[in-house]
Amino acid sequence: MKLFSSVNDVANINALVKEALKLKQNPYANQDLGKNKTLALVFLNPSLRTRMSTQKAALNLGMNVMVLNIDKEGWALELRDGVIMDGSTVEHIREAAGVMGQYADIIGVRSFPGLRNREEDYSEMIFNKFVQFCKVPVVSLESATRHPLQSLADLITIEELKNVARPKVVLTWAPHIKPLPQAVPNSFAEWMCKADVDFTIAQPKGYELCADFTQGANIIYDQDEALTGADFIYVKNWSAYEPYGNILGKNEEWMLTNEKLKITNDAKVMHCLPVRRNLELSDEILDGPNSIVVHEAGNRVWAAQAVLKQMLESL
Amino acid sequence: MKLFSSVNDVANINALVKEALKLKQNPYANQDLGKNKTLALVFLNPSLRTRMSTQKAALNLGMNVMVLNIDKEGWALELRDGVIMDGSTVEHIREAAGVMGQYADIIGVRSFPGLRNREEDYSEMIFNKFVQFCKVPVVSLESATRHPLQSLADLITIEELKNVARPKVVLTWAPHIKPLPQAVPNSFAEWMCKADVDFTIAQPKGYELCADFTQGANIIYDQDEALTGADFIYVKNWSAYEPYGNILGKNEEWMLTNEKLKITNDAKVMHCLPVRRNLELSDEILDGPNSIVVHEAGNRVWAAQAVLKQMLESL
Amino acid sequence: MKLFSSVNDVANINALVKEALKLKQNPYANQDLGKNKTLALVFLNPSLRTRMSTQKAALNLGMNVMVLNIDKEGWALELRDGVIMDGSTVEHIREAAGVMGQYADIIGVRSFPGLRNREEDYSEMIFNKFVQFCKVPVVSLESATRHPLQSLADLITIEELKNVARPKVVLTWAPHIKPLPQAVPNSFAEWMCKADVDFTIAQPKGYELCADFTQGANIIYDQDEALTGADFIYVKNWSAYEPYGNILGKNEEWMLTNEKLKITNDAKVMHCLPVRRNLELSDEILDGPNSIVVHEAGNRVWAAQAVLKQMLESL
Repeated sequence: MKLFSSVNDVANINALVKEALKLKQNPYANQDLGKNKTLALVFLNPSLRTRMSTQKAALNLGMNVMVLNIDKEGWALELRDGVIMDGSTVEHIREAAGVMGQYADIIGVRSFPGLRNREEDYSEMIFNKFVQFCKVPVVSLESATRHPLQSLADLITIEELKNVARPKVVLTWAPHIKPLPQAVPNSFAEWMCKADVDFTIAQPKGYELCADFTQGANIIYDQDEALTGADFIYVKNWSAYEPYGNILGKNEEWMLTNEKLKITNDAKVMHCLPVRRNLELSDEILDGPNSIVVHEAGNRVWAAQAVLKQMLESL
Repeated sequence: MKLFSSVNDVANINALVKEALKLKQNPYANQDLGKNKTLALVFLNPSLRTRMSTQKAALNLGMNVMVLNIDKEGWALELRDGVIMDGSTVEHIREAAGVMGQYADIIGVRSFPGLRNREEDYSEMIFNKFVQFCKVPVVSLESATRHPLQSLADLITIEELKNVARPKVVLTWAPHIKPLPQAVPNSFAEWMCKADVDFTIAQPKGYELCADFTQGANIIYDQDEALTGADFIYVKNWSAYEPYGNILGKNEEWMLTNEKLKITNDAKVMHCLPVRRNLELSDEILDGPNSIVVHEAGNRVWAAQAVLKQMLESL
Repeated sequence: MKLFSSVNDVANINALVKEALKLKQNPYANQDLGKNKTLALVFLNPSLRTRMSTQKAALNLGMNVMVLNIDKEGWALELRDGVIMDGSTVEHIREAAGVMGQYADIIGVRSFPGLRNREEDYSEMIFNKFVQFCKVPVVSLESATRHPLQSLADLITIEELKNVARPKVVLTWAPHIKPLPQAVPNSFAEWMCKADVDFTIAQPKGYELCADFTQGANIIYDQDEALTGADFIYVKNWSAYEPYGNILGKNEEWMLTNEKLKITNDAKVMHCLPVRRNLELSDEILDGPNSIVVHEAGNRVWAAQAVLKQMLESL
C-alpha cells in the first residue's frame, strides 16, 4: 500500500480488518519489517488518539518515529501555487513536503478543513499536495473530508464485538455548539457502505452528507425509527454540507440517552472521541455498560499497525 | 509498584534509594524489562528536568517513550463531573485518561495546582482522576501537592553525599516574586520525616506547610538558628497555605548567602530548580563549591529509573 | 570532535565530506557506536529540516533522541550574568545547560540572533554559554552567526554533484521582506573559502558580510558578472551587517530567474530553505531542472550523521 487516504485505497477491507485483529494478538512479531524505517507524523492540527496510537503502532513494528507539529514547532505553510510569498507564510508545501520525504520512509499528515470554502476543502488540496510532493507513502491522520484510520478502527471494533453475522449499524447525528467537519461521518459512511453491515444514517433534515460517501446507506430523519433494533450506534456531530459548515439548529433532543437505547438490540455505543459529555452524549451512556468508546479508541493502534505494516511491505 | 504519588506508595524508601544508586552504577542492565513497554509522559504544565530525566530513565530501561503536551498538542480537558460540556473544554478527563491507558503501559502525569482553591488542589482531583480512569500504573511528574520524583532524587543525593550517618537537613524558605505551589516543600518534608536524617524547616511566620506533611520536623522561625550545624540546606520558596496561595511579604533577608553558610557544617546547598538567581539563591552560592544543584538534578534520572523499574516488574 | 560550531572546529573538511558520503551509502553501519547514547536537541527557535534531519542522523547511529522546545515546553531562560531574576525569566542558562548535560551525551542547540545588538549577537553569548555550562559535546543547530550543519550539507552536495574538479560557486543575495540573520551566508562563506572551489559573493552594495567570514572570496556587486560561468548558485537573503539588521532597499531585480541562468554553466541552484517563492526565488527555478534544493536538504542527514559519528567516537 502506497497511500491510505480513504476506503478506496484498500484492496480488501475484510482482509485488512483480519490483519489488524491478528496484530492485536501478536503486536511485536514484525519488528524486522520496521527496523531503520522512519515514520514522520506531521500535525497541522491538534491530536491525542491519532498521535499516540499511530506512534504506538509504529513502535510495535520496530520503526522510528518523528513527530512534527509544523504549525507550532515550524512555521506557516503556503498552500497556493503561483503567489508571491510576501505575507505570513514562510515555506511552500512543495518544499516542506519534499524535504520531509527525504527524512521519512512513510509520512502521516493531519490537516483539518477550514469549513469556509467547500470546494477547497473537498478538493483535499493540502493532503493531496503532501502526497504529491513528499514522494513517499502517506497515511491520512484525518484530512479535510475523511478520517480513514478512525473508520478502520471502527470496523475492527464492530467485527470484534458483533453478536450477529450482519449487524445493524446506525450513525446518528448528535448536537454540538461548534461547527465540526464532516470527515468522521463521511469516512464512517463510506467504510460501512462497503462493509458487511446493515447501515443507517439518522439525522435532522438538512444535515445530509455529500452523497459520494453514502451510496447504499438508509438515510432516516426519525431517530427512533433508525435506532430500532440497532446493534451498534455511532454517535457523531457534523455541520451541514449545504449551507457549508453551518449549524442549522440546536436539536438537543438528538442526544443519545439510556431511554433511547431501549428500542435497540442492546446496542453498543461508539464515538470517535473527543466527546462533549451531556451535549453530544450523556454521562449515563458513557459511564454505562453499552459504551465501548475507550475500547474503540484502543483499536486505533491495530488499525494504524495494519496499514503501516502493508506500507512497510511495499517499500 | 502500581502508583508513585507520594512517599506513602513506597514500601521501603531505603531500599528504593539503594536500587537507584545501583542503577546509577549500571544503567543499562535491565533493558529486557522495558522492551516493547511504553511510557506516556503527559504534561499539563511546562517541564525541563522531569521531562528529560524521566525520558532518559525509561530509555535506559529499554522502554519506548511518548511525550504529550496535552494543553498545547491536544486540547483543554474537562475535570468536573456532571457538567454539560458546552464551554471551552473539548474532552473529559474520563475519556482522555482512559484512552491514554490503552496506548501506554505506564503513564506519567504533571498537573500543577491552580493556587486559588485549596480544597480542590489538596484533593488532588486531576491526578487522582487520571489514576482512576487510565487503569495503568501512574507516576506523578509533580501534582498539586507533591513532587515525589524530586524528593526521591533529593534523598538519593543526600544518601550519596552525606559525611555523617545522620545528617542535619534544613529546608529553608526563600523569597520569590510569584506565588509558588507547596508541592516541592510538602513532598521534601514528608520524605525527610521518614528518612534517617535530623530534619528542620526554617521559615518566616505564616508559611507553615500543611501539618500532614511535616510530622516529626522541627519548625523554626529563626533562619540562623535553623542553619547552625546543617549538613544539607534545601532552599525553596513556597506560598502560604493560609491564606492559601498568598505571598505574605518580601522577606528578602531570607535569601541564602555565603555569609550564612559560615554557621553550618560546610553545608551542601540543594534546590529542585528552576531557581531565580539573586532572588531565591545568590550567585555566590550557586557558582560556589557548596552548591550541588546540578548534581542533584542529575540524580532525577536514577530516581525515575528506580520507580519505573519497580513498576515494570509489577506489570 | 567535542564541538561543532564552525568550520574552524573541523580538522579536515574534505575528510568530513567523504565520511558523510560514505554514511549516505551505508547509513546503519555504526549503530553500536550510538547504543545507549542520548542526543538532546534544544530549540530556542522553530525548526523543520534541522529538527528532522538531526533526529534521523542520530537514529541511524543507534542513538536515543530527546527533543526540547525550551521556549514552549519549558520557560524563558536568563542569559545575563549577575542580574536579580525578578522579571520574566524563570531559569538561568547556567543551570539549564548544566542540567541538560546531565541527561545527554551530546547536545544540539538552536539559538537565533536578536538582530538588535550586533556585538551581543556576534559574541555568540547564548551558544557559547550552553557549551560552557553543559560540559558535554555540543552541535550547533544554527547559532546567531553560523549554521555549520547547513554549510557542511551544502559542501557535501557540491562535492556530490559537481561536474568539474574546481567548480565556480556563487553566493547571491536575494530579496526578502523581513530582516534575516547573516548566519547562513556567513557560514556558507567561511566553508567555501576553505573548500576547493572558486568562490564569489554577489550582493547589492551595503550588504557586505563581516569580513571574518569572507577572506578569499570575490565580492562582486554586479549579479550578471558574478553569475557568468557559475556551476553552483547559492541563493540567500540576509540583512545588513552595517547598519546592523537593516533592509537597505527592495532590490527586487536580484531575484534569480531562468533568464539569468543563461549566462551560467547550466548552474545548479541551491538554497538552505525555507524559501519564499517568487520573492527570493522564482517558481520557474524551484520547479525547474536546475533546482537541487530538496536534494540539498536531504544531505542534511549525512552532514549531521558525520558530525555525530565523530563526536560519539570521542566520548
